[in-house]
Amino acid sequence: VPPEWRIYARSASDDKAPVIAVLAAIDALRAANIPLSVNLKFFFEGEEEAGSTHLPAILEKYADRLKGDVWLLCDGPVHQTRRMQVYFGARGITDLEMTVYGPARPLHSGHYGNWAPNPAVVLANLLAGMRGPDGRIRIAGFYDDMRPLTDTEKRAVAEAPDVDAQLKNELGLAWTEGDGKSVTEQIMLPALNVRGIRAGNVGATAQNAISTEASASIDFRLVPNQTPEKVRQRVENHLRQQGFHIVSKTPDMETRRQHPRVIKLEWGAGYPPARTSMELPLSRAVVRLIEDALGAPIVKMPTLGGSVPMYLFLDVLKTPVIGVPIANHDNNQHGANENIRIQNLWDGIEIFAVLLAGLGRAF
Amino acid sequence: VPPEWRIYARSASDDKAPVIAVLAAIDALRAANIPLSVNLKFFFEGEEEAGSTHLPAILEKYADRLKGDVWLLCDGPVHQTRRMQVYFGARGITDLEMTVYGPARPLHSGHYGNWAPNPAVVLANLLAGMRGPDGRIRIAGFYDDMRPLTDTEKRAVAEAPDVDAQLKNELGLAWTEGDGKSVTEQIMLPALNVRGIRAGNVGATAQNAISTEASASIDFRLVPNQTPEKVRQRVENHLRQQGFHIVSKTPDMETRRQHPRVIKLEWGAGYPPARTSMELPLSRAVVRLIEDALGAPIVKMPTLGGSVPMYLFLDVLKTPVIGVPIANHDNNQHGANENIRIQNLWDGIEIFAVLLAGLGRAF
Repeated sequence: VPPEWRIYARSASDDKAPVIAVLAAIDALRAANIPLSVNLKFFFEGEEEAGSTHLPAILEKYADRLKGDVWLLCDGPVHQTRRMQVYFGARGITDLEMTVYGPARPLHSGHYGNWAPNPAVVLANLLAGMRGPDGRIRIAGFYDDMRPLTDTEKRAVAEAPDVDAQLKNELGLAWTEGDGKSVTEQIMLPALNVRGIRAGNVGATAQNAISTEASASIDFRLVPNQTPEKVRQRVENHLRQQGFHIVSKTPDMETRRQHPRVIKLEWGAGYPPARTSMELPLSRAVVRLIEDALGAPIVKMPTLGGSVPMYLFLDVLKTPVIGVPIANHDNNQHGANENIRIQNLWDGIEIFAVLLAGLGRAF
Repeated sequence: VPPEWRIYARSASDDKAPVIAVLAAIDALRAANIPLSVNLKFFFEGEEEAGSTHLPAILEKYADRLKGDVWLLCDGPVHQTRRMQVYFGARGITDLEMTVYGPARPLHSGHYGNWAPNPAVVLANLLAGMRGPDGRIRIAGFYDDMRPLTDTEKRAVAEAPDVDAQLKNELGLAWTEGDGKSVTEQIMLPALNVRGIRAGNVGATAQNAISTEASASIDFRLVPNQTPEKVRQRVENHLRQQGFHIVSKTPDMETRRQHPRVIKLEWGAGYPPARTSMELPLSRAVVRLIEDALGAPIVKMPTLGGSVPMYLFLDVLKTPVIGVPIANHDNNQHGANENIRIQNLWDGIEIFAVLLAGLGRAF
């Protein structure tokens, strides 16, 4: 089978490919009479795409059985350049729905425009006060909880292949946030992403009216040592300083009559970020074994931009966790025509075999 | 029929009531052998709710036949206190759809959040830079074209009944725009109303994604001597100063790759404001005749908050125009259960009769 062919199937890449690859690696080692260098425990999690709601309890309950020297996570993609990568952390996440209120019924913008508070404008000003177009978060103290990158991590970021020009061309972008810093540098920082805004109507359905409410949806990406709790605290402090009265349910008329600026907040649970040290002998060993096997340097990412609950292994089980993904980045994950590239499957089998055969003696 | 009864019917108030009232007034004058003091021309316009697209051409074509000393417009409501009012102007209007662009396809907010420009954030910052939550328009020079109110107009505004407390209670508002200025004062100013914002998704449908575009819909209310053209110029200057590249169609990839901030603008036509002088002998006469007939002071509004194309009469035909509305404000205009209050119909007939019988001798 030519290496550029692909297998198209639901979950072909995410997350069937690594399951098949690791089993194929064990078969191959057995067939070649190469012994495992480590004791091996498998942990297959079927709820990851549904929030992994039972995972923390299961990890806690079976903490004894799940003891080990390292967790290898096989989820995620290799680098966009098709170079293999390992990742040592992932950003945490928490999300927020915010709603601000105008008049109790929609008002004619001619008769009341400029007098009745416009919730769309309140929301726009609020969001602008939270985050600039440059990506910088304007909430007081938001960056205070950040643990700075180590020299090793900084070097890994600097050595990551530069994909910015290609991405900008592909995405039709003449600029990026972060004053020209690379995407790899930027995902080492926390992010405030406005997922959506809803207020009144636009286009053909727009009405000359002041609407009754306006909503925004936000996801925060967190880096060590931020936590969802600390983010929530800082955001709520910011809102109070801006004069907002925070409620958790749709306010009644009495609340609206009493407080000039009422905001409803609905927080998702989220989870914290995690980052395994790249300096651990074990971390170095994983990188070295893969690079030796491939005969080429791999990409080392201190933190993935996306979120995976790595903190459960690192902080709850107190065990290092390293991501060893094998899927191609252009795999249409979660979408139509999801696929796995054949060469990625071959590479995956090889890498897993090398780690299973060598890791026990390498650190 | 008790005066608080109402007639419920489509267009009962807007705009059948004044048509019936003026015809009834003429019948009444004839029956009482009271002669008209003026030459009377009727002009019934059937397209007002559809934008009056043919009105300017018709007024121009029949300018000779339509010559007169004053136009009395009978559209609109009396004051919320049920006191009769006359109005001498109306705010102009123009509207704008704005769209800003992010990446050419939606991106995962984890992998690209903080690097790929977020159009919802660009839009929020743009709107915040155009207009504060206090109603103040932040576009450079926006207020420069304003003709200040005369002393008479200021007095009329100050004398208008105070409905703010009642409105705030009814609408669930603990604050208003304009630092506590009354609704009557505020509608003497231009307004920038954000009719709607659309970006990504919120609530149950929110996705951890950076969306490809974000749109806002705005209506501007204009006061003398602003014009839609001048507003357009000032807004576009403001956008260019903010670094935006203005286009009128959805930009292609080349345009997006070349210009850091691309914005699509779609302007509605709109029309300018108008304000007849309250000092004209004719203006004073209209007020005096109505007040004498009712035995009570009426409300005098230099400008309505809403928009009516009064400029066509004032600026195109060079003839003063005064609004003499008769409908109750709580008439569910344009909605279900539109109605006219019986007392308003009686008052309307009386006022129209008084004006027709007396205006010719009163100035």
